[in-house]
Amino acid sequence: MSKPMGPIPPEFAAQQGMLRIGGQPADALIAEAGGTPLFVYDAAIAAARIARFRSAFGDSAGLHYAMKANPYRPFLNWIAKEVDGLDVASAGEMRAALAAGMNARHISFAGPGKRDAELQAGIEAGVTINLESEGEANRALSIAARLGICPRLAVRVNPDFEIKGSGMRMGGGAKPFGVDAARVPALVRRLIDAGADWRGFHIFAGSQALKAEALIEAQAASLALAADLAEQAGSAPPLVNLGGGFGISYMAGDTPLDVEAVAIALKENLNKQPQILANTEFIIELGRWLVGEAGVYLTRIVDRKNSHDKTFLIVDGGMHHQLAASGNFGQVVRRNYPVAVAARMGLDAEEEVSIVGCLCTPLDRLADDVMLPRADVGDIIVLFLAGAYGLSASPQAFLSHEPAREMLIGG
Amino acid sequence: MSKPMGPIPPEFAAQQGMLRIGGQPADALIAEAGGTPLFVYDAAIAAARIARFRSAFGDSAGLHYAMKANPYRPFLNWIAKEVDGLDVASAGEMRAALAAGMNARHISFAGPGKRDAELQAGIEAGVTINLESEGEANRALSIAARLGICPRLAVRVNPDFEIKGSGMRMGGGAKPFGVDAARVPALVRRLIDAGADWRGFHIFAGSQALKAEALIEAQAASLALAADLAEQAGSAPPLVNLGGGFGISYMAGDTPLDVEAVAIALKENLNKQPQILANTEFIIELGRWLVGEAGVYLTRIVDRKNSHDKTFLIVDGGMHHQLAASGNFGQVVRRNYPVAVAARMGLDAEEEVSIVGCLCTPLDRLADDVMLPRADVGDIIVLFLAGAYGLSASPQAFLSHEPAREMLIGG
Repeated sequence: MSKPMGPIPPEFAAQQGMLRIGGQPADALIAEAGGTPLFVYDAAIAAARIARFRSAFGDSAGLHYAMKANPYRPFLNWIAKEVDGLDVASAGEMRAALAAGMNARHISFAGPGKRDAELQAGIEAGVTINLESEGEANRALSIAARLGICPRLAVRVNPDFEIKGSGMRMGGGAKPFGVDAARVPALVRRLIDAGADWRGFHIFAGSQALKAEALIEAQAASLALAADLAEQAGSAPPLVNLGGGFGISYMAGDTPLDVEAVAIALKENLNKQPQILANTEFIIELGRWLVGEAGVYLTRIVDRKNSHDKTFLIVDGGMHHQLAASGNFGQVVRRNYPVAVAARMGLDAEEEVSIVGCLCTPLDRLADDVMLPRADVGDIIVLFLAGAYGLSASPQAFLSHEPAREMLIGG
Repeated sequence: MSKPMGPIPPEFAAQQGMLRIGGQPADALIAEAGGTPLFVYDAAIAAARIARFRSAFGDSAGLHYAMKANPYRPFLNWIAKEVDGLDVASAGEMRAALAAGMNARHISFAGPGKRDAELQAGIEAGVTINLESEGEANRALSIAARLGICPRLAVRVNPDFEIKGSGMRMGGGAKPFGVDAARVPALVRRLIDAGADWRGFHIFAGSQALKAEALIEAQAASLALAADLAEQAGSAPPLVNLGGGFGISYMAGDTPLDVEAVAIALKENLNKQPQILANTEFIIELGRWLVGEAGVYLTRIVDRKNSHDKTFLIVDGGMHHQLAASGNFGQVVRRNYPVAVAARMGLDAEEEVSIVGCLCTPLDRLADDVMLPRADVGDIIVLFLAGAYGLSASPQAFLSHEPAREMLIGG
């Protein structure tokens, strides 16, 4: 019995059977890059997502890019000009964001475990630091005092609520991220009393959500929470980062997120928002939804073999470049990402194959029992949905293989 | 309810509460290395494993190190002098093995998906190539003919048997590795007819086994299979690599492998082996068992925080350096590796904490709900069992944090 795979993003067309990425044949891009394995990111697809976001949300919310999703420098340099801000999660990411030309005022730095040197670098650069705990607040204030700089500080909130009815727990309970909501007003008052430039709240309630209702409920609850916390703190937040959580369809049967429904509901909620948020700026930070579908991973078949009546296609890439596709990146159950044979797009599937990477470990499976057109040694396998949490989230040094190539087109 | 953690390897002692590694205080090693996060590998522990292997197996089997377990160059350079050979899984690993001074004749190169350039490099260097398929055999023979070199070729066998009674399936069925046993004799005859230097068989039946009976059964079946295949091929194998599979205790309740029982059984089996294996050399290749317990990962607490009555210790390391400890490296269920507070070894556990890494993702959990002595910001957390499949098997670039340091002592 063959197993299903997720849907190929609609932007990928073919001509005479050959996959085209941004209008260019996949084989030509590989030749240009110098070989496989190769990640190609199509800025035009990310641009279409940004345009869709702008069209849906209008002026109601600004758009930040969470660069942890894909820190490839040429892509970062491109998207830095297209979004309103960048969210970073380490001093290394902050330096890259600044080098991409983003104004420090539009960079926010989140993440538990910020070292003193990172807090200092962030305060010196003038980025907004999303404080994850009272302890981190103390350290930031003390470093700022020593430097004689007024720090830009926001408070990351660990919300008390969780999403009901969606089966998806997106917040609530004990978490290493943020400050429990009940303790936030006191912390805000302390920041203001200490003379810091309090920037507002960061409320992140989950990720990879495909149900609009779940996101609508989370955003409404976040708005209510922000208003309540601001009232309690006695100060209006200049900015509220509503987090992200927009998912993409990885698996068979996934229904794409109705982003427009989320936007309509957010606008309605903003129209009836409490007075204390009247001058607040709202931000949505997205990573996966902006870039996940914009990337493909191209890898060449090195061997085609039979074992006990099963056909294996062995490729020159693997889980050292695309860990998530192997099912080893937080997934409980392994499911097939969409895959295809680059030169046989749109042809009928003829045979059931499993695609495995070149690593000498049974973990290195890229597709299990999928139906594909016939493919032979030398053919290119395409793994879609490789734009987010791909190369940078994979154990690249494992088994000392050649590094993957990366390429940005359409930027 | 606190959760259990695995056992701390017995070699780690403490003095005045401070963990000592190879007799040196952990804090002094961190100072010498220049900071955390830091991996320390104690060659003396690996040497003790090697001595235990030698004592148990004597002349019955040689010992190879599977360098994918830990390719840290100073460690590799040390262990290359202590073992009889190195097993590599890429051209990159092969180059490192040669640079470590290992004679090419004692290097074997396994792994599906070897590219033509890798086969060529292996043939030119004179290492033994463990062929994973008939297609790879064809490519190797054709490259060798073009180079005018007699290649050293072994056949990796996908064994038909699986271990019964142990609940652990260690072989059998369709696999991307090796050639199905039924087709091996024909392939061996082809290699010999083509004038290759046929080196024998590689039979790998599983990994991370803790039950001696399971390994004994696998090795006995491997010997019988090797004899049978050799009879069918009409040629005695110069060498049989029996694989490895020796496990270490990661989790609470794991019983250490009785290596001596495995050795006794192997010797008995070798004493009654068929005539065709009379002059065959036997090899066991080990990675995890040699080095897994020899390494610790030291990471400093950056924040201590409370959320909904739960205490989190947030450290400057994380899953980007120790993916397996986070439960995201092939594990179906996350379990706690052994952890400790470096300066409070042997003290009573006082509180239940969760240890999380500095990455801004809920996947970055290093210990869940464990009982530890009180630890504060600045204290060092020790993760044990970090010697194998640690740094090189982790997504080091994820979130652009500082790289981990590594250090070899006792070498």
